[in-house]
Amino acid sequence: MTPRPRVVIAGAGFGGLTCARALKNAPVDVLLVDRNNYHLFTPLLYQVASAVLDPGEIARPVRQLIRPLRNADFLLANVTSVDFEQRQLLTDHGPLPYDYLVLASGSQSDYFGNASLAQHAFGLKELDEGLAVRNRILMRFEEARWTVDRERRRTLLTFAVVGGGPTGVEMAGALAELTRLVLSKDYRDLDLDLVRVVLLEAAGWLLGTFAEPLREAARRSLESKGVEVLLKAKVANVTASSILLADGHEIPASTVIWTAGVRASEVGGDLGLPLGRQGRVQVLPTLQVNGHPEVFVIGDLAGAVDGGAQLPMLIPVAMQEGRHVAATIRDVLRGYGATNFLYKDPGIMATIGRNSAVAQLGPIRLTGFLGWLMWLFVHLINVISFRSRLIVLVNWAWDYLFYDRPIRLILRAADEKAPRPK
Amino acid sequence: MTPRPRVVIAGAGFGGLTCARALKNAPVDVLLVDRNNYHLFTPLLYQVASAVLDPGEIARPVRQLIRPLRNADFLLANVTSVDFEQRQLLTDHGPLPYDYLVLASGSQSDYFGNASLAQHAFGLKELDEGLAVRNRILMRFEEARWTVDRERRRTLLTFAVVGGGPTGVEMAGALAELTRLVLSKDYRDLDLDLVRVVLLEAAGWLLGTFAEPLREAARRSLESKGVEVLLKAKVANVTASSILLADGHEIPASTVIWTAGVRASEVGGDLGLPLGRQGRVQVLPTLQVNGHPEVFVIGDLAGAVDGGAQLPMLIPVAMQEGRHVAATIRDVLRGYGATNFLYKDPGIMATIGRNSAVAQLGPIRLTGFLGWLMWLFVHLINVISFRSRLIVLVNWAWDYLFYDRPIRLILRAADEKAPRPK
Repeated sequence: MTPRPRVVIAGAGFGGLTCARALKNAPVDVLLVDRNNYHLFTPLLYQVASAVLDPGEIARPVRQLIRPLRNADFLLANVTSVDFEQRQLLTDHGPLPYDYLVLASGSQSDYFGNASLAQHAFGLKELDEGLAVRNRILMRFEEARWTVDRERRRTLLTFAVVGGGPTGVEMAGALAELTRLVLSKDYRDLDLDLVRVVLLEAAGWLLGTFAEPLREAARRSLESKGVEVLLKAKVANVTASSILLADGHEIPASTVIWTAGVRASEVGGDLGLPLGRQGRVQVLPTLQVNGHPEVFVIGDLAGAVDGGAQLPMLIPVAMQEGRHVAATIRDVLRGYGATNFLYKDPGIMATIGRNSAVAQLGPIRLTGFLGWLMWLFVHLINVISFRSRLIVLVNWAWDYLFYDRPIRLILRAADEKAPRPK
Repeated sequence: MTPRPRVVIAGAGFGGLTCARALKNAPVDVLLVDRNNYHLFTPLLYQVASAVLDPGEIARPVRQLIRPLRNADFLLANVTSVDFEQRQLLTDHGPLPYDYLVLASGSQSDYFGNASLAQHAFGLKELDEGLAVRNRILMRFEEARWTVDRERRRTLLTFAVVGGGPTGVEMAGALAELTRLVLSKDYRDLDLDLVRVVLLEAAGWLLGTFAEPLREAARRSLESKGVEVLLKAKVANVTASSILLADGHEIPASTVIWTAGVRASEVGGDLGLPLGRQGRVQVLPTLQVNGHPEVFVIGDLAGAVDGGAQLPMLIPVAMQEGRHVAATIRDVLRGYGATNFLYKDPGIMATIGRNSAVAQLGPIRLTGFLGWLMWLFVHLINVISFRSRLIVLVNWAWDYLFYDRPIRLILRAADEKAPRPK
């Protein structure tokens, strides 16, 4: 029996996982490689950061997800590069030979070389970043409760979210509700009118990818929840206690969450392949790498072009690309050629705390409560397991009915056998 | 209006929290001090370590728990000592003046001065330790999956639990089931007959505080689940890959969980008060400190004596002592004297994985499935909030019906703004 072709997939996010699933029952052996042992449901990461959900509710072990596939295995490793000639994916766990390679390493926060941002601002891309933001927010309230100086209290209680895209809008909305609806009950002796949630956006509008009326609806909804929306506000420098804007304006703030810049994973730069905007790897319309038809790039890492522009870094793009590549591999194994990828836009949505969201689904545009119901429905059916769905629903209902956030824990690091503090 | 007497309670565990609650509506101001912002439901910590529950399901924010009290506030701080003359609790947040002081700082793992244990073994007392154990166990399986050398695989897959008390028994049982029922499905290509779960106990029996037939039932139940029970096994030294016993026997193992020694929190030693066994502070029968009637010590930190022996380090002891001290403070404020504390033993129980537990409730002794139902009932009604109860029930039912552990995530540390790895 000749060995079956080996498909190595780097990255167990939405692109890589979807590709592995679409290869179920194909005559190949699939190896998924990721530096985490879990798949993260990123659309709800801001709910970990804002103390609604626990990590176990938005992340699933990769091994559990690939159990039904039978032809797939998993390796926990960091990808360093690719040896295209030897057909090996290079990792800190050694080289992994492949017959077909799917690169799906995703994206990371981009601070545009601003060292002060990298040092002081929190990204919101990874599960541990969500936990770190949660810890920071709760710590700042604890500190403020016992701080005598009023100006210092105001600085401690000012939370700045940079970036007016969906992540920034959702984080700012959730943060405003956390402080006004939930923490106000925990800190009865604290002057909570000092709390500021500021959303900073360099452009003249929020949610640039949405239609103009939805942008406005989102801004009004955020402001009604107490978020200060600052447009045309470009961040120049951040310190431990302030944000300096490009126009010289300064905002005292001791917590900065950065959602304004994203670039492709660093793996892309180590491949020796031509890169497009945001460091994304240029691919053929078939999602193959030029000159290496057995190598595919998908998701945020790929700079697939549609109508002259790169496709946005969105989950539906990654999933559709993953499915397309799986179909291409099946076709090639049957002797057919690769076909071009065509993106079908299912629409976009963003939620602004409880009761409000904006959704743009082709000709349909929803705002407010109706948009929120649509958001709830789409996210609940997409949270990956039935168990998570039940638990997420319990937590959401709890939050909704009792204005309470279940997970307000300041967790210390769970280090690999760290010495206990004395 | 004269200021109300100030009661400072050091520790928001079962003793301190119960005391604060029992002071509800008393004419005092209560300040709870703890180095964590949460109260931990320690009896289920082993379920975090064995990937059944998430931290948010066994820990509740202290501020949420004291909300209904109205006369209580919370401070996140480390207690360093007490200035009995000035009547101040000394913390890293400055001195806190008190009229009445309740010391309830609990206990910690005791490695009996064995540096190799302190370096290589995991304690199981704190929430972050539970997460660290979970990370370690899952990491070892990932490593073993891709390790070629069979002896090395066996070492990676050998998990030793030291200490045959309830914590050790529960951890060993849960670990055996995790590996045999759950991880076996995740690692189909791994020779899982290499997995060893070893429970080491220095005495000649498990569960020394239980009646003899229950000890035997627990041992049989563990062995039927695949746990190797080694009695009269005293640990002399631990390395990264082995355990050396006092009799010269060596067990290759790369994960050691230490539940065999517990001593009072270090705060006890810094007070200048006489200490009893396990570093516990000696108290009068009223739980007062000799010479300082306004200072009380309760819970694991206190060496309250009943019938010549110190009371065990158990939750019911801490809670009853907390209630007693609250009643004493109320009495003293009304001009009455302090009364002696009398412990009412409600019984003890320990669970051994699914379907099996031992319970000793006065004359009633339960084993097996009946004991397990009793354990389930007692723990479920005692998990603190209604929301937790629902979610814990969902997770338990999931585990029970599908032999699945929901929370198999290897989480990296959520450091306070740690630089991202490149």
